Amino acid sequence: MLAGLEVVATLNEAGIETRHALAVGVFSNEEGARFAPDMMGSGVHQGALDLDEMLERVGIDGTTVGDNLARIGYAGAAECGGVRAHAYVELHVEQGPVLEEQGITIGAVEGVQGISWGEYTLTGVANHAGTTPMRLRHDAGFAAAAIACAARRIAGEMGGDQVATVGAITLVPNLVNVVAKEAVLTVDLRNTDEGLLREAEARLADAVARIAGDEGISAARRTLARFAPVDFDPAMVGLVEATAERLGYSVKRMPSGAGHDAQMFAPNCASAMIFVPSRDGISHNVAEYTAPEDLRAGADVLLQVLLAKANASTGSRKFTA
Amino acid sequence: MLAGLEVVATLNEAGIETRHALAVGVFSNEEGARFAPDMMGSGVHQGALDLDEMLERVGIDGTTVGDNLARIGYAGAAECGGVRAHAYVELHVEQGPVLEEQGITIGAVEGVQGISWGEYTLTGVANHAGTTPMRLRHDAGFAAAAIACAARRIAGEMGGDQVATVGAITLVPNLVNVVAKEAVLTVDLRNTDEGLLREAEARLADAVARIAGDEGISAARRTLARFAPVDFDPAMVGLVEATAERLGYSVKRMPSGAGHDAQMFAPNCASAMIFVPSRDGISHNVAEYTAPEDLRAGADVLLQVLLAKANASTGSRKFTA
Repeated sequence: MLAGLEVVATLNEAGIETRHALAVGVFSNEEGARFAPDMMGSGVHQGALDLDEMLERVGIDGTTVGDNLARIGYAGAAECGGVRAHAYVELHVEQGPVLEEQGITIGAVEGVQGISWGEYTLTGVANHAGTTPMRLRHDAGFAAAAIACAARRIAGEMGGDQVATVGAITLVPNLVNVVAKEAVLTVDLRNTDEGLLREAEARLADAVARIAGDEGISAARRTLARFAPVDFDPAMVGLVEATAERLGYSVKRMPSGAGHDAQMFAPNCASAMIFVPSRDGISHNVAEYTAPEDLRAGADVLLQVLLAKANASTGSRKFTA
Repeated sequence: MLAGLEVVATLNEAGIETRHALAVGVFSNEEGARFAPDMMGSGVHQGALDLDEMLERVGIDGTTVGDNLARIGYAGAAECGGVRAHAYVELHVEQGPVLEEQGITIGAVEGVQGISWGEYTLTGVANHAGTTPMRLRHDAGFAAAAIACAARRIAGEMGGDQVATVGAITLVPNLVNVVAKEAVLTVDLRNTDEGLLREAEARLADAVARIAGDEGISAARRTLARFAPVDFDPAMVGLVEATAERLGYSVKRMPSGAGHDAQMFAPNCASAMIFVPSRDGISHNVAEYTAPEDLRAGADVLLQVLLAKANASTGSRKFTA
C-alpha cells in the first residue's frame, strides 16, 4: 500500500500523466484470521463474496465484521465495487524462503495456490482421566491430535507443493485431569493444483471419518474458506518479468503459497503480482523482515509496470478513482 | 461430606457416644484442575505439602490460592493440621465403570493409583501456513499433537492399569493460517504400580525428546503433581469389606483410579475408602450420577465402619474436633 502511494507521489512529482487513471487499493481483512474467509474485502469488491453476508460474519471474538467496520470508521459511503479496474498489480513480500535461498530479488508471480480451510468440531464424552479405562474413552482431544498428525502425514505422502497446517486447537474443558468432551480444530490445506487439493481434502475427510469412528466420537465440518488455484494473466506476468530484467534485477517466475487480494481480481481483469524476498522465509511472525534495497526494487518494478500498463492503448475501460 | 454430616447427625439423634471423637473433614482443592497439585488441602493438612508454598501457588487464571481463600472466606484462623486423626475413612463415588459393570454395590478400596502430571511448553517458530514448505517447519502445534498421540500409544503398549490423558492443549497464536510458535499441553499418567508408572514417564520423556528433535523445537517440562501409589491400611480395608458383607451389600476389593484425600492421610494414620457405583462410569462430567439406594448403602457402611473404629479400644490419640 505504501509502495502504491509512493508510485502515485512519484508520478505526480514528475508531472507524468498516464493514459488511464491509477488507483491505490486497500482492502479490509485480507488475512481472515479473525473473520473468515481471508481476502474478504477484495472478494466483496470483485463480487466473489456477498456484501451483506460478509458484514454479518461473526469472528472468533463473537463480534461481526459490520460492527467493527462501523466502530473503527471504515464503513464508508461509496458504492461497493463502484471503481472497476482494467488491470491490477500487487507488490508483496514472498512470505516464504524461495527468493532468498536462490539469491533472487524479484518474483514474477504466475498464480496463487488453492486454499481449503476446514473447521472440525469433535464431540466426545468428558470423563475422569484416572478412572476411565483407555478402551472406554471417547476422547475428543485425542481425536483432534490424531487429525493433526494425519494432516501432516497426508502432506508428506502427497509431497510436491501440498501443505497442511493445524494452527488452532481448542479443547473443552481443557483441564489436566478430564478427558476432553469437545475439540475444535482448523485444517489449512493448500496446493497449486486444484485436482491435488481435492485429493488432499478427500484424504483428510477419510482420516477424520476413520479417527472419529475408532474413538466413538462425532465430527462435524464447516468450511471457513475455499478458493481454487488462480492463474494470473500471462501477458501481465511477462510484463513483470521483462520489467525486472530491464531494470537489472534478478527475477524468477513462481507461484504464491499465500492467498492475496490479486487473486480476487484475476477473474475480472488482467492481474499480476510482484514478490520481494522475506528474510529466512519468516512471515506471520513479528520477525518478518525484507531488506530496504529489496523493498525499493519491488517499488521500482511496480512503478514501471503500472506506467507501462496505464499508458498502453489497449483497454476500453478507464480508472475512475 | 454430606454422608459424614449424616453419620454425625444420626449418632447424635440416637444418643450414641463414641469412645473416640468423630470429625468431618472438608478439604479445599481436592481436584487440582485450577490450582495444581490436586489433594492440596489434605496434603497441606497432613504435612506432605508446604502451607506457604501452596498459598502462593498461581492457578490457570493467574490468581493465587491464598488470595482466593481470603476472597471466599475460607482462610480460617485455626492452626493448620491442629486436628490430628487416629483413623480416616472416606466415602466416594467410584468415578469409573467397574462396580456397575459387575453389579456390585460397595468397593473396599485397597489403594490409589500413582499420579504423574506433567506440563510441556513447546517452543517452535511461527510461520505462514501457505508459504512455508513442510520440511522447513518448526511447528509447536504439530509436536503437541504428536505427543498426545504418543501418550495414547504408550498406554496401549503398556496395557494393564496404565492410563494416559492429554486433557489440555493451548496453541499460540491459535490461528487457522499460522504455524503455531508455542504449545502448552498437559499429560496425566496413572498406574497402581510405581515401577510401571516410572516406565510410562520414561517412555513419554523419550517420545517427547524424539518428537521435539525431529521437529526442531524445544520442549520444557514442569511437574504439576507427582504422587506415588498408596496402599490403604489392610485392617481398615478388611473392616470395610466385612461391614459391607454384614449389612448385606455385595462388595469387592479394588484400587482407585482417581486421587483422593484419603491417600494423604494413609502415611500418617489407618485410612480406607468406600466406593459406590457411578452410572456408565461417568465422572468429571455434569452427567455424573449415583443411584439414591447406592448412596444410602455407602452412608450405611460409612456409619458402621466409623462406629466400629471410634469405639475400638486401640489407639492412643483421640479426635479433638
